[in-house]
Amino acid sequence: MNLSTLLIALEAIGVLAFALSGIIEAARKHFDLVGVVMIGFITAFGGGTLRDVLLDRRPFFWVEQEFWVWALIGIGFALPFFFKAQHIELTEKAMLIPDAVGLGAFAAGGTHIALQMDASPLIAVLMGVITAVVGGILRDVLVNEVPRAFHDHQPYAVIAFAGGWLVVLLSYVGTPESVDVLVAAVLMIVLRLLAVKFGWELKRWRFL
Amino acid sequence: MNLSTLLIALEAIGVLAFALSGIIEAARKHFDLVGVVMIGFITAFGGGTLRDVLLDRRPFFWVEQEFWVWALIGIGFALPFFFKAQHIELTEKAMLIPDAVGLGAFAAGGTHIALQMDASPLIAVLMGVITAVVGGILRDVLVNEVPRAFHDHQPYAVIAFAGGWLVVLLSYVGTPESVDVLVAAVLMIVLRLLAVKFGWELKRWRFL
Amino acid sequence: MNLSTLLIALEAIGVLAFALSGIIEAARKHFDLVGVVMIGFITAFGGGTLRDVLLDRRPFFWVEQEFWVWALIGIGFALPFFFKAQHIELTEKAMLIPDAVGLGAFAAGGTHIALQMDASPLIAVLMGVITAVVGGILRDVLVNEVPRAFHDHQPYAVIAFAGGWLVVLLSYVGTPESVDVLVAAVLMIVLRLLAVKFGWELKRWRFL
Repeated sequence: MNLSTLLIALEAIGVLAFALSGIIEAARKHFDLVGVVMIGFITAFGGGTLRDVLLDRRPFFWVEQEFWVWALIGIGFALPFFFKAQHIELTEKAMLIPDAVGLGAFAAGGTHIALQMDASPLIAVLMGVITAVVGGILRDVLVNEVPRAFHDHQPYAVIAFAGGWLVVLLSYVGTPESVDVLVAAVLMIVLRLLAVKFGWELKRWRFL
Repeated sequence: MNLSTLLIALEAIGVLAFALSGIIEAARKHFDLVGVVMIGFITAFGGGTLRDVLLDRRPFFWVEQEFWVWALIGIGFALPFFFKAQHIELTEKAMLIPDAVGLGAFAAGGTHIALQMDASPLIAVLMGVITAVVGGILRDVLVNEVPRAFHDHQPYAVIAFAGGWLVVLLSYVGTPESVDVLVAAVLMIVLRLLAVKFGWELKRWRFL
Repeated sequence: MNLSTLLIALEAIGVLAFALSGIIEAARKHFDLVGVVMIGFITAFGGGTLRDVLLDRRPFFWVEQEFWVWALIGIGFALPFFFKAQHIELTEKAMLIPDAVGLGAFAAGGTHIALQMDASPLIAVLMGVITAVVGGILRDVLVNEVPRAFHDHQPYAVIAFAGGWLVVLLSYVGTPESVDVLVAAVLMIVLRLLAVKFGWELKRWRFL
């Protein structure tokens, strides 16, 4: 599989997954249709946009591939009706699967993009983390909750951080870049889903 | 009327209107004077600044026209005393009129600026929406409320979106650009005020 | 003392002080270890990053001096254990001292950096204020509180504003630049600590 096709596919999966998580969250809060679409938008594009601003990378990926903007607008308006028609319940759990998929796709893709722009390994890994977590943080702040990434006590950003280093390490090995990115993305998604499934917890900070 | 004069006037009206809405909101929350001025500031300049960052447009409009910064500082300190002297009650309703004026002025102006910088129609419209809504979103997040734009169930962002398309459409017709922008701005302000007055509601997303 | 050494030292002090304030705040809210580190990070680097984006200054200071990123990651993980071992109580007061130090260091340094980039005096002062207050605002928004800078009714941003003007004024006098920055930074820190100690209050906006 061609590298640039893979990167575009990964980005598409990340955008759709995060948009879905934002739409579910906003629908759960009884936002109106426009609010649901806007939260979906910001969740999907927030992380990548901040990464592009920090790396001074223009045009933004959503300006370059305007198709995604149109797709999101359509999905945002169609989805609530689909959920209703299918009697799908919008529980907090429903959000966790697209969120995990977006985490892996964006962290691997973001790290790779930063490496290509000659960022140092640490900065590239941080850019991957930013791509992966900022959309979700904005989503949670905008619905007036403490961001899950900070206090759900389950590994989230730390998976993006570890997965970013995996992309960096694999880039030193002889494997094709598309394999590096794909392996890291899949591994992060699986890890996150396992963490949620089995309730792995990070050490909580407690007063004595 | 000269186009650049009109654009500056529109921007001035938008800045003052949003600053006023931020000042009223912060005063209602019993912030101190410095807090009131800062919220006014962020509400007034937040949307335009994000638009300029995204379009990579420097210097920012508030750097270019430093006068507005001084004006805002003055207004911010004078206004609370004026309200008090005049026994003007700072109800939530008092905020809706400057907010509507800012919406129209910024959405029309923002779309036009993006078109001038060769943005595609969709991106230009989105830049208009961003210019118009981001200041208010920041204002609401900073006073720790869910942004009105997302959940008051009344058309707000959607008016900016439709008005932006009107600017795009009129730009294809032979009318002078200043007329395009002015017509769209006035139309958006009127629509928003009517929506508030008559309680037009967007479809709310509800579980079965 | 050499100017660039002083500026780097000031920045280091500001970064560490704000990181500490973010870590204390997040630990008080019982965030997990990763959340504590991330809040420390954002508090430390948020203001300077926004300043650099607004001034179009690349590479960012944390990209240029990657050492600080590593240092913060280490401190973030070590500190909670240290507090626990030392039975140091994380009261709201514990946060006020590093916060004051960060305020002075960042406001003086930020104003000076903007002046060096040929910003006008007012814009340079605003950049100093942004450098000093944005990290703390992000910290408070992310733990879902109304930012202290806006409503604690004690002088905070106003000290950064006045201190910034002092840097500007001193830059017209014949003193060496390093003295300008150092004097302003120390004065701001002392003022803020006095304000907290003696409970100086800003005029609160009250309805009749």
